[in-house]
Amino acid sequence: MRLKLIVAYQGEGFSGWQSQPDGNAIQDHLEAAFLKIVGTRVVVQGSGRTDAGVHAMAQCAHAEVADDSLTPAKWRKALNAHLPPAIRIMRIGTAEPDFHARFSAKGKVYKYRVWNGAVLPPSELGRAWHVVHKLDLAAVQAMAESFIGRHDFAAFSANRGDNSTDTVRTIHSINVGRKGDLLTFTFEGEGFLYKMVRMMTTAIVRAGEGREPVEALQARLKDGGPKWNHVAPAEGLWLMRVLY
Amino acid sequence: MRLKLIVAYQGEGFSGWQSQPDGNAIQDHLEAAFLKIVGTRVVVQGSGRTDAGVHAMAQCAHAEVADDSLTPAKWRKALNAHLPPAIRIMRIGTAEPDFHARFSAKGKVYKYRVWNGAVLPPSELGRAWHVVHKLDLAAVQAMAESFIGRHDFAAFSANRGDNSTDTVRTIHSINVGRKGDLLTFTFEGEGFLYKMVRMMTTAIVRAGEGREPVEALQARLKDGGPKWNHVAPAEGLWLMRVLY
Repeated sequence: MRLKLIVAYQGEGFSGWQSQPDGNAIQDHLEAAFLKIVGTRVVVQGSGRTDAGVHAMAQCAHAEVADDSLTPAKWRKALNAHLPPAIRIMRIGTAEPDFHARFSAKGKVYKYRVWNGAVLPPSELGRAWHVVHKLDLAAVQAMAESFIGRHDFAAFSANRGDNSTDTVRTIHSINVGRKGDLLTFTFEGEGFLYKMVRMMTTAIVRAGEGREPVEALQARLKDGGPKWNHVAPAEGLWLMRVLY
Repeated sequence: MRLKLIVAYQGEGFSGWQSQPDGNAIQDHLEAAFLKIVGTRVVVQGSGRTDAGVHAMAQCAHAEVADDSLTPAKWRKALNAHLPPAIRIMRIGTAEPDFHARFSAKGKVYKYRVWNGAVLPPSELGRAWHVVHKLDLAAVQAMAESFIGRHDFAAFSANRGDNSTDTVRTIHSINVGRKGDLLTFTFEGEGFLYKMVRMMTTAIVRAGEGREPVEALQARLKDGGPKWNHVAPAEGLWLMRVLY
């Protein structure tokens, strides 16, 4: 039986999504919970990695279990009982045998949160990037819009060392939201390269600070270089949804 | 010079507002920060206590400082530099010499957050009370409304051991908000007795669960007894504002 899991986690205190030797990745905790329930190893396949410190409201993963005596509701209860409270199975259901959390994904929605005020409220600690310099919203908007569409994001991504050369991606929308001192950038796209959202975020923020001309940043996107080296902190990034 | 401070804090990890022998109360941290800056003891007087674990978006306090060479903006910067990140001076200004954070207060606004869904999202850990049983909103609303007005809250408050006998208080409004599985109860009143908000909250929740008839709870409020013994967890309670 193939299970489809919707997983939420607070990233601080974990080693990211992908299984790590320290056993403290989200995937490790999920596989450990399955192991405790069924007694044999179950591979939990996520829609993609999130880095250490990145949060998720609704990461998606699948797992193949031999035992079909448990209902999805009971699986959720059993798994949550074996997981730390900062990792929760929010929803669980059965999926078609060919459903694959990574390969079936049609897109993703990420939100980046920026606190743009003089003092970071303690309630935002570890949940937003604190940017003190007041951002020019017109420049923020202009820079965000220039990322929308199909581009070669070579300059705005880091190499994970896996020699992936296809750096063309399509971004459907970037929504800039504002509520008092909180700015949110919501990115929806077919897929994102390694560190791409956090690099686009610094480009948007530095454009808003007036530290980089929007036109120069846009040119860099067109030319595919030179490499952009600013990466926004992991703690401001939230995986909101995986689209299928 | 009298300073008026607007202080935000995440309650977990501290021993409440009021100075404690362990030196880990919010007041202790604020006084320690003043001591580091001016070299002598400065008393920080809050609008009232909050218990260990209770959060504040805008607690108010005053402090009398001899040195008037620093501007309020510099005071804020200096104090925040000596405070843990989970305690922040959000705003600071000068006040009239007779301003008193506690005695000048005309009222307070508290918010209690309840997560009313099967699974508590990790982003709500330590910020809301997780109530699984689906609440009947009509009963919630009815119970909340019955607290509004001038009542003897003897049954819905704990004795702090200070023999205060005046247990009559006026509540101006209780607003029930709902956004998905998140329920919020916003209490505005002239003042609140010890544990009163957390006890009203459990009365509202238990009415919503159908575990106590609304009428019986209302009768208890009229008769001033018997004592209600259910106190909602501190972590769901937020001091939102002090009114002057």
